[in-house]
Amino acid sequence: MPETTAAVTARIEEPIGTVTLAEPRRRNPLSEQTMREATRLLRELSADERVRVIVIDAEGPAFSAGHDLAEVHGATRERQDQIFQACAELMSVIHQIGQPVIAQVQGMALAAGCQLVATCDLAVAADDARFSTPGVRIGLFCSTPMVPLTRAIGRKRAMEMLLTGEMIDAATAVDWGLINRAVPAGELAGTVHELATRIADASSHTLAIGKRAFYEQIDVTEPEAYRLMTQTMAANAVSCDAQEGIGAFLDKRTPVWTHGRDR
Amino acid sequence: MPETTAAVTARIEEPIGTVTLAEPRRRNPLSEQTMREATRLLRELSADERVRVIVIDAEGPAFSAGHDLAEVHGATRERQDQIFQACAELMSVIHQIGQPVIAQVQGMALAAGCQLVATCDLAVAADDARFSTPGVRIGLFCSTPMVPLTRAIGRKRAMEMLLTGEMIDAATAVDWGLINRAVPAGELAGTVHELATRIADASSHTLAIGKRAFYEQIDVTEPEAYRLMTQTMAANAVSCDAQEGIGAFLDKRTPVWTHGRDR
Amino acid sequence: MPETTAAVTARIEEPIGTVTLAEPRRRNPLSEQTMREATRLLRELSADERVRVIVIDAEGPAFSAGHDLAEVHGATRERQDQIFQACAELMSVIHQIGQPVIAQVQGMALAAGCQLVATCDLAVAADDARFSTPGVRIGLFCSTPMVPLTRAIGRKRAMEMLLTGEMIDAATAVDWGLINRAVPAGELAGTVHELATRIADASSHTLAIGKRAFYEQIDVTEPEAYRLMTQTMAANAVSCDAQEGIGAFLDKRTPVWTHGRDR
Repeated sequence: MPETTAAVTARIEEPIGTVTLAEPRRRNPLSEQTMREATRLLRELSADERVRVIVIDAEGPAFSAGHDLAEVHGATRERQDQIFQACAELMSVIHQIGQPVIAQVQGMALAAGCQLVATCDLAVAADDARFSTPGVRIGLFCSTPMVPLTRAIGRKRAMEMLLTGEMIDAATAVDWGLINRAVPAGELAGTVHELATRIADASSHTLAIGKRAFYEQIDVTEPEAYRLMTQTMAANAVSCDAQEGIGAFLDKRTPVWTHGRDR
Repeated sequence: MPETTAAVTARIEEPIGTVTLAEPRRRNPLSEQTMREATRLLRELSADERVRVIVIDAEGPAFSAGHDLAEVHGATRERQDQIFQACAELMSVIHQIGQPVIAQVQGMALAAGCQLVATCDLAVAADDARFSTPGVRIGLFCSTPMVPLTRAIGRKRAMEMLLTGEMIDAATAVDWGLINRAVPAGELAGTVHELATRIADASSHTLAIGKRAFYEQIDVTEPEAYRLMTQTMAANAVSCDAQEGIGAFLDKRTPVWTHGRDR
Repeated sequence: MPETTAAVTARIEEPIGTVTLAEPRRRNPLSEQTMREATRLLRELSADERVRVIVIDAEGPAFSAGHDLAEVHGATRERQDQIFQACAELMSVIHQIGQPVIAQVQGMALAAGCQLVATCDLAVAADDARFSTPGVRIGLFCSTPMVPLTRAIGRKRAMEMLLTGEMIDAATAVDWGLINRAVPAGELAGTVHELATRIADASSHTLAIGKRAFYEQIDVTEPEAYRLMTQTMAANAVSCDAQEGIGAFLDKRTPVWTHGRDR
């Protein structure tokens, strides 16, 4: 199990790895150190063969209140650069690692906390969760949170959240595509576990191919996306796990994955 | 009327051309041959002046179960390349031809079948239709289906379909923007016919300008899109059918289209 | 207060600047002159320090019926170029100015009128408002309106509006993300005023940073967006109003903005 600090912890319960924001009394602020530590833990979990899906959750009543404002206040431009680069690196690593990453959200997810939810591959929230990008109210527009936010929920809705800083509730977040599902708080952990377990039934090799492909094709033109994905698909099709999976399907039996390892 | 094979047929009932997936007992698999034949038939219908709108429908209880897995199983990498290139070519031709293409969907639309629905300009489904991208379950991630899927329904929802392989129903598909309408099964053909006929009331020349413009502007930056579309709009405005249409509107009479042909 | 013509007027009631389409008997056509005048008025309001939010509204029962067809009919290609360049310039200036722009919509918003709604940063409509891109019916496909329309409501829905020319109602426009809210007609002006006033509580400097950033990051790849926004965020964080806002938040007091001006 990876080493952890007080502010962010990690654990593995095969096949699920979990990174937990663990400063509940401060509403889980994303300080530079916490973001760098979360990035390191995600990389470590990702390198562990036992981990096939990763969950990011949080202790206490709030998911995350966003950046640590005490840290941002009075900081030099050089330090601000470091803080926001640490933030961008955390978000990037979520897309780069092969395992699907699921956000498990209760309470408030604000600013960089909302960004984290928007960035994860999937997100499930308690139905009393709330989301906002309130930076505009304190003079610091949520310009980095808006990168994944606009790409998740579209222009008019993102603009409203960004310009007003107002909260949206979990049902609205589902409706707008910010999160996948909202469930009663008592069912949150169980729902995420069930979703993660179901995804982990698949070949890790296939999941890693697919997730990499997803982000590779999403930012290019459609003809270029087809050029890339046609090659990805053909390469995937001759892989061990695809041939096993297709053979099992045709034979009506359960596939036995190698997860990309030699048998 | 174009020649057809058993697996895919075409017919013209002016002003509508129809391509029909016609292997209902095998749930209309998209074998390489079927995809190449469908591509050829779409090109032929497109070249026929009588055809102003094209419908893609399917015989039997399912729209399409996707690729022909018996063909993918055991195939060489070279053969896989050919199969997935044939698939990309079919999807591309749907966007390239001047006529709007409407998918008419009943039952299951899986993997490349779901891709076909996502690719068509419009889609109408029976309210018992279901959609999924289940490749992940058989080790072959739906990387080519995700190209139009992510562009139709957005990131979080596409990721959920792709990672879980689970079905969504027709109402969800409408809600997410994968299809335009869901109607009772008994009204499906009539609804599509009415929609196609209404669209075919327009000038073919105008429809072809607009459809080409749609895909031309969608993958570029907004300033570049305006640069292109300003020219398209001005060129369209001096065309015969636009001047006729505007004149008819100002005169409160019904326009008489040349459909881009000399009068 | 800026000079105005009969067809389009402007006024300032601090902190809100308003541009009003003012040819209600002709359903507020967007003639070349009206578009050039609206562009000029938006630039003038934008340059006025007192104006922190801008509203575009319209007199009479309709928001706008779109281009002035009498002007387009019979015009040379050179003239068409001028008309549609004036249109693109109006839409561009809405994104370029630092103040958020809110469309206040009653009745019909057709073609370029619908484009104007799609282009504004936010839009609120009376619940009897209707939207369409009916150019296809008169031979002139709505190729320039589709630039912001496809980016607001997605592919399948935009294609349906563009190919059929049919109206959507205000509830559908909310559901699809074309507008932010639909309210009873009697509450329209009040709702927009309240929204504008709330947004104007923020620092103008912060709003301008955020709006520029929004359009800067939306048309590039996600990694490039993060590269740009990390710098934007760090530069914003050391600004006078951000440091004041964060300090006020930490001290639990109300911030006092400089709005980017020297104190």
